[in-house]
Amino acid sequence: MGLFSKDIKTLDDLFVHTLQDIYYAENQITKALPTMISKATDPQLKQGFQTHLAETQNQIKRLEQVFEMHGQSPKGVTCPAIDGIIEEANDVAGEIADKQVLDAALIASAQAVEHYEITRYGTLVAWAKQLGRADCASLLQQTLNEEEATDKKLTAMAHSKVNPKAA
Amino acid sequence: MGLFSKDIKTLDDLFVHTLQDIYYAENQITKALPTMISKATDPQLKQGFQTHLAETQNQIKRLEQVFEMHGQSPKGVTCPAIDGIIEEANDVAGEIADKQVLDAALIASAQAVEHYEITRYGTLVAWAKQLGRADCASLLQQTLNEEEATDKKLTAMAHSKVNPKAA
Repeated sequence: MGLFSKDIKTLDDLFVHTLQDIYYAENQITKALPTMISKATDPQLKQGFQTHLAETQNQIKRLEQVFEMHGQSPKGVTCPAIDGIIEEANDVAGEIADKQVLDAALIASAQAVEHYEITRYGTLVAWAKQLGRADCASLLQQTLNEEEATDKKLTAMAHSKVNPKAA
Repeated sequence: MGLFSKDIKTLDDLFVHTLQDIYYAENQITKALPTMISKATDPQLKQGFQTHLAETQNQIKRLEQVFEMHGQSPKGVTCPAIDGIIEEANDVAGEIADKQVLDAALIASAQAVEHYEITRYGTLVAWAKQLGRADCASLLQQTLNEEEATDKKLTAMAHSKVNPKAA
């Protein structure tokens, strides 16, 4: 969508725009995760990121289904939010020498990504329901549940071992 | 902190860096909120943003207390994540002509900001506890509780009237 062109006229337009935003974001996340996998030291964390990469690829397919159900071709729009979150994750990781501290930072960065997804999918589910698209809402809710579960797993891993090792 | 200089050596360094990150973020949020207040049409939403601005100013003071308790001078570091989230909020708002749709977008943008804060404060509370700074953790937890409450209020406002009016 063009800036300053007032292309968003209805809630439906806003819903589609936000689908395009998270579609771009999910694709950027699949590009960022391999670096996080390679940087992680704790085997469980490494495996967790690996599992999340496969999950993200499935979430992209689910988004493509939502686009199609809603009569749209899957398309991304640049999302400065996810670009900033990933840039910050790379900046911080680049400043850390100690491997245990780096694991703690990687978890924090991954949780920032998860929270961005949680807020966007939460909004998309609400808008889909408002627009009478219970079918789209149901698919988006599946992804929202996965993101929330991932966030909880990361918190548990941080508390149980990654933070204690880093301290 | 300088990029590529590996300035973060310990979890304590990472804690301080993240305090600086959220300190910068909170200050950017106080600059972004007046625009959101002026753009909001729904009086309850406008008032909600106004209240949140006062709350954010208090959260900045609380962060300054945490810096001081931890023997540090309050200082910010550029946080590309919040810059990206705010840039995206402005981009989307600039594309919307309809006032009711704009209100729905403003809520979504505000929730993206809240979720960024929730993830960072959640991490900071965990790290403060790990570092034996229950005093810092307690102050940071107060802000975390406020951010979660704001996010819930925004969800309730979206469901009860802003989304229905936008549709």
